[in-house]
Amino acid sequence: MLEINGIAVSNGIAIANAYCLVEPTLSFEKVEISEIDAEIERLKDAVAKTKLELEVIHESAMLKFGEEKAGIFSAHLLLLEDPEMFSAIVGKIKQQVNAEFALDEVSTMYINLFESMESDYMKERAADIRDVAKRLLAHLLHIELPDYSRLSTEVIIVAEDLTPSMTAQLDKQYVKGIVTNIGGRTSHSAILARSMEIPAVVGTKTATKNIKHGTSVIVDGKSGKVIVDATEEVKEFYLTAQKDFEQEGQLLHPYISLPSVSADGHHVKIVGNIGTPEDIEAIVTNGGDGVGLFRTEFLYMDRQELPNEEEQFTAYKKVLEKMEGKPTVIRTLDIGGDKELPYLNLANEMNPFLGYRAIRLCLDQQHIFRNQLRSLLRASVYGNLKIMFPMIATLDEFREAKKLLLEEQQKLIDNGIPVSEKMEIGMMVETPSAAIIADLFAKEADFLSIGTNDLIQYTFAADRMNERVSYLYQPYHPAILRLVKMVIDAAHCNGKWVGMCGEMAGDEVAIPILLALGLDEFSMSASSILSARSRIARLSKEKLMPHMESILSLTTAKEVEEYVKNILI
Amino acid sequence: MLEINGIAVSNGIAIANAYCLVEPTLSFEKVEISEIDAEIERLKDAVAKTKLELEVIHESAMLKFGEEKAGIFSAHLLLLEDPEMFSAIVGKIKQQVNAEFALDEVSTMYINLFESMESDYMKERAADIRDVAKRLLAHLLHIELPDYSRLSTEVIIVAEDLTPSMTAQLDKQYVKGIVTNIGGRTSHSAILARSMEIPAVVGTKTATKNIKHGTSVIVDGKSGKVIVDATEEVKEFYLTAQKDFEQEGQLLHPYISLPSVSADGHHVKIVGNIGTPEDIEAIVTNGGDGVGLFRTEFLYMDRQELPNEEEQFTAYKKVLEKMEGKPTVIRTLDIGGDKELPYLNLANEMNPFLGYRAIRLCLDQQHIFRNQLRSLLRASVYGNLKIMFPMIATLDEFREAKKLLLEEQQKLIDNGIPVSEKMEIGMMVETPSAAIIADLFAKEADFLSIGTNDLIQYTFAADRMNERVSYLYQPYHPAILRLVKMVIDAAHCNGKWVGMCGEMAGDEVAIPILLALGLDEFSMSASSILSARSRIARLSKEKLMPHMESILSLTTAKEVEEYVKNILI
Repeated sequence: MLEINGIAVSNGIAIANAYCLVEPTLSFEKVEISEIDAEIERLKDAVAKTKLELEVIHESAMLKFGEEKAGIFSAHLLLLEDPEMFSAIVGKIKQQVNAEFALDEVSTMYINLFESMESDYMKERAADIRDVAKRLLAHLLHIELPDYSRLSTEVIIVAEDLTPSMTAQLDKQYVKGIVTNIGGRTSHSAILARSMEIPAVVGTKTATKNIKHGTSVIVDGKSGKVIVDATEEVKEFYLTAQKDFEQEGQLLHPYISLPSVSADGHHVKIVGNIGTPEDIEAIVTNGGDGVGLFRTEFLYMDRQELPNEEEQFTAYKKVLEKMEGKPTVIRTLDIGGDKELPYLNLANEMNPFLGYRAIRLCLDQQHIFRNQLRSLLRASVYGNLKIMFPMIATLDEFREAKKLLLEEQQKLIDNGIPVSEKMEIGMMVETPSAAIIADLFAKEADFLSIGTNDLIQYTFAADRMNERVSYLYQPYHPAILRLVKMVIDAAHCNGKWVGMCGEMAGDEVAIPILLALGLDEFSMSASSILSARSRIARLSKEKLMPHMESILSLTTAKEVEEYVKNILI
Repeated sequence: MLEINGIAVSNGIAIANAYCLVEPTLSFEKVEISEIDAEIERLKDAVAKTKLELEVIHESAMLKFGEEKAGIFSAHLLLLEDPEMFSAIVGKIKQQVNAEFALDEVSTMYINLFESMESDYMKERAADIRDVAKRLLAHLLHIELPDYSRLSTEVIIVAEDLTPSMTAQLDKQYVKGIVTNIGGRTSHSAILARSMEIPAVVGTKTATKNIKHGTSVIVDGKSGKVIVDATEEVKEFYLTAQKDFEQEGQLLHPYISLPSVSADGHHVKIVGNIGTPEDIEAIVTNGGDGVGLFRTEFLYMDRQELPNEEEQFTAYKKVLEKMEGKPTVIRTLDIGGDKELPYLNLANEMNPFLGYRAIRLCLDQQHIFRNQLRSLLRASVYGNLKIMFPMIATLDEFREAKKLLLEEQQKLIDNGIPVSEKMEIGMMVETPSAAIIADLFAKEADFLSIGTNDLIQYTFAADRMNERVSYLYQPYHPAILRLVKMVIDAAHCNGKWVGMCGEMAGDEVAIPILLALGLDEFSMSASSILSARSRIARLSKEKLMPHMESILSLTTAKEVEEYVKNILI
């Protein structure tokens, strides 16, 4: 039995066999061959098998994720059927080399060609060729490639890291748990794992090294422990823990239809963060009071070009209709930073987190922004839409963004297209400057939503994805609590409401503080909604408030955590 | 005549011919040769010329910058005399290829070998070989390489960018002005140009493209204009402007021996920022009240290993003695971010400005830090030393750094080594968190020094080196002014003093605000000291103070700038 420790990022217990997403070595030698026809047959056979494989994957992706995300596999199929590439490989084989070598020579040539091109889009094409060539080579060598999108038994995925697009393709039916080497609480895989309610432990550093494909693994998404080859005794313990967790879930069940209200009658909203229209389901089943953050980036990712106005409109409309009049906050495009769109051909930056992203990009490339704004405005009549702008640092930026929104609104009205008249226009508070001048913003914005993940990393000047400085990701730190208080007070002074859509809003230590400071809306993963509601039901805002002065003058995050744990809960 | 616009970063007017630091193309073809002996002679000739060239450079570097910085050239000389490499090239020539080709083959092999190694130190060796091979190739091809360290006439350096080490090798006798394509007010070249009082315009984007080697250039370091091939009339205008600038300097001359005091008798300190012990000279000749920031990184840069305790002690002692008892603030190592030390083998980071740098690195690699602290403590008896820690974000960090300092102090005392008893221990305020909890820091630190360059970039979450978001570098922004006020008020409430060592401290619009807010120490480039002193002498703190409330509730940086320009000065 082996115990590995990591960062618990998605609650729950999972027990299943490991499915290691480690690339096998596809090595081969150059061999002189005499039976040319037989070698060409081997190639044809590999092409046929790869085609079948891709067709199956394509079909299953279509069913699970829709045409858009399945598109990549139809592109791979097209590539596979490209006669030019095929005859180039055959030509090589005719020079008496084995199919593996011929394939590698030809594909490497194409890959180098595409990679040498300036455009990121062309570089992406190189990735497609690499992927198809890898499948062909694997078939030639009779080696099976890992393919988590075709799972047929329950597994724990073990990987170095999961990219957002990989995570989005996970099938909840079979993927019971996730263990990765790198990442932290706010990495995208962590956020997605929580939204899919799959227990996950990240940042284990050594998981892929220490966990063999097929071994039995227990993932404890509460403590961050990963247990490999557990003894019967330990397994028994976790089976019980798993049952308890499910029971706890059942105990929370009544809260689905209860209002979000504290023990002393103070009402708040507990809402959900979502990434795709499909995520709405979990918000509804968990009784969320609305959507506090719809991240629209996913509409723009894993594709070859910008989504058009119609596609976006359909997605926003779907979300709004499903929310049936409950408040739904949609954030405009927050691309850049660690989320890239190859087709935008953005220059590499030395510090992408301090770079050309979100509203900065949108105000600069207005056609992208206006397109999204139009889709949002058109969708606004189908529900209770509130729009917010990400990464606002100065009033100039907020004013400019709002101006563009109103311009598009007027154009639609002039063309007789209906738009909602009561749509609120707000902003994210995720730069320290936005928090510091929140009083000025609160005069011009309809609401403020504190994005703690970024706010914390900028306040401490520490990349939350960088493990060497991740100790500075301190949500309970007095500096953060003071900024949060500043924002809430500033908004309330101006009669506006404040939400929080960072991970902190669902944090059990943070909740009593946020309640006492007067936060109006807590936005979190769907899976946290019920426990947050039950927690708030047991807290009294009146009783908590007198402690705030003491807490805000504590000197370290640790002191705050201890104060809350020992005195408040 | 052509006018190019850039960012004015170092005041003054320079008129001279352009010296373009553009690398010439050293292209050649592979040629089959028959006269092998003659070809070997050509190689020997190139080696001899390169050797002579390197010896001259080495000697001049020794005289100008001392043994440490000249070291790189003796390493190159050693490499040139390496018999193994030489005979490998001769071996190639014997296969009937020309010397250029043989040299390129052999050096490329060595370069690839070194570059493939894990260690950054070995990768640096690849750079040495590349440099020597380039010199040899240039001699073989009879092409002259640019070499700004061997100038013998007055020139304007025109380059894509200057690295800190390049700038440090500039000879002020001949380099009259600097023009670069990239960079901004706070880039290292800009800081160094100011400290050397060389007029400079950076960020012109097109200078290297539009300015030909040898053409006449005027650099206006006040307006940011660069004029190429000026008409006689324009040249006349700038010759007058140059005289005016010198006269202005003379008008400021009396301030050298005057105290730094406002019109209404409020005393402040106007001190200098320095990078090397040599920079002290300019502080003394400009009548600085002390040193507000000695950046110790330069002791660690352009070398192969960490400086030992003795070397550091000597440098600190020199600075303290030259300052003759005036306050001298030395900042502990601020490496990482955009300043790398190859011999530390630091991992690459996605966002180095939000990464493992400064105090974070020092608290982690304590042998480096303790070594520096010991040198500082030993030097403390030679003057009025104050130590400060960079990039402090939490109290835990400050406490830990101070603890290590006191431990080293006790060890020295136990060993009978004298240390100053009145040395102050302070910290930089350059993360938003440090500013927000300045009240807590002010209870434990002896002084606070606001590092505005970093504080601004973190507050707006915008990399100040990234031209796409450099519009967010806004020193006059209300968010920044509020943070500065917070820090000053917090320090004064606790009886501590506050300095500012970012570029903002010498800024003509910022000075009246900083004076009114109560800043105690203004630290800037030596060249700005006198104009700042004369400016403060004409301002009344009492009269400025009532305006602060209005200024702090303005909404944008532009409004602040206009308010100051229209009403305060």
